[in-house]
Amino acid sequence: MSNAENTESIFTQGDKAPADYFMGNAWIKKLVASDPVFNTQIGNVVFEPGARNNWHTHPGGQILIITDGTGYYQEKGKAAQIIRKGDVITIAPDVVHWHGATANSSMTHIAVNTNTQKGIVDWLEPVTDDQYKSIQ
Amino acid sequence: MSNAENTESIFTQGDKAPADYFMGNAWIKKLVASDPVFNTQIGNVVFEPGARNNWHTHPGGQILIITDGTGYYQEKGKAAQIIRKGDVITIAPDVVHWHGATANSSMTHIAVNTNTQKGIVDWLEPVTDDQYKSIQ
Repeated sequence: MSNAENTESIFTQGDKAPADYFMGNAWIKKLVASDPVFNTQIGNVVFEPGARNNWHTHPGGQILIITDGTGYYQEKGKAAQIIRKGDVITIAPDVVHWHGATANSSMTHIAVNTNTQKGIVDWLEPVTDDQYKSIQ
Repeated sequence: MSNAENTESIFTQGDKAPADYFMGNAWIKKLVASDPVFNTQIGNVVFEPGARNNWHTHPGGQILIITDGTGYYQEKGKAAQIIRKGDVITIAPDVVHWHGATANSSMTHIAVNTNTQKGIVDWLEPVTDDQYKSIQ
């Protein structure tokens, strides 16, 4: 069978991610709102090169499905890791982390927030330019 | 920004879907196993043209994210609906349904099984050729 998909993005771009919690240009397309039936919230996030979110935690955990490009995922106290199209990252509840694009590539992921009956996200401080450039 | 993604599939093909629960050729790539931390199981499913799964239910619900192609989703007692790349389908717990490709197109979706502490899937009877052809 063919390994080719068509070249259109899966989702429309969505809304600009809030500057309070994101550095650079990122776009969020909401896909599934949290409710008490599924206890799950899903959104697609496109990070342009250099864009990233603040350090943060998820009370109920999160799963990232990388669908395009190349970026970073970092947990507090650990080295940043490269994440690429096809990677899946599971983030346990209350683990302090951030994610975003590399300086030279965009990165798109579907974010699945799990167990949302426990909460969705708690935002912390930005990833500074010094922190970000130190992993280039 | 560009609306183009590269043309490689996001995931590798995975394993042939079990013939006991699928008609035709479908392929399942497991992405996240169920565990008591996330209560979520995720897999990518590629349905070749004409392929579909049996009628079934999910005790904890399911969310389908269509990432490529065109297919069908049908709930028992309702008309089949066309599903396309970019669509998101939420399936409440215990709703009898099936999904698959159309006769002339493949269809790929990410399947997010939610609340897996309640169970994942209960398989029922196949979608017969007569049922399937009646929606062409």
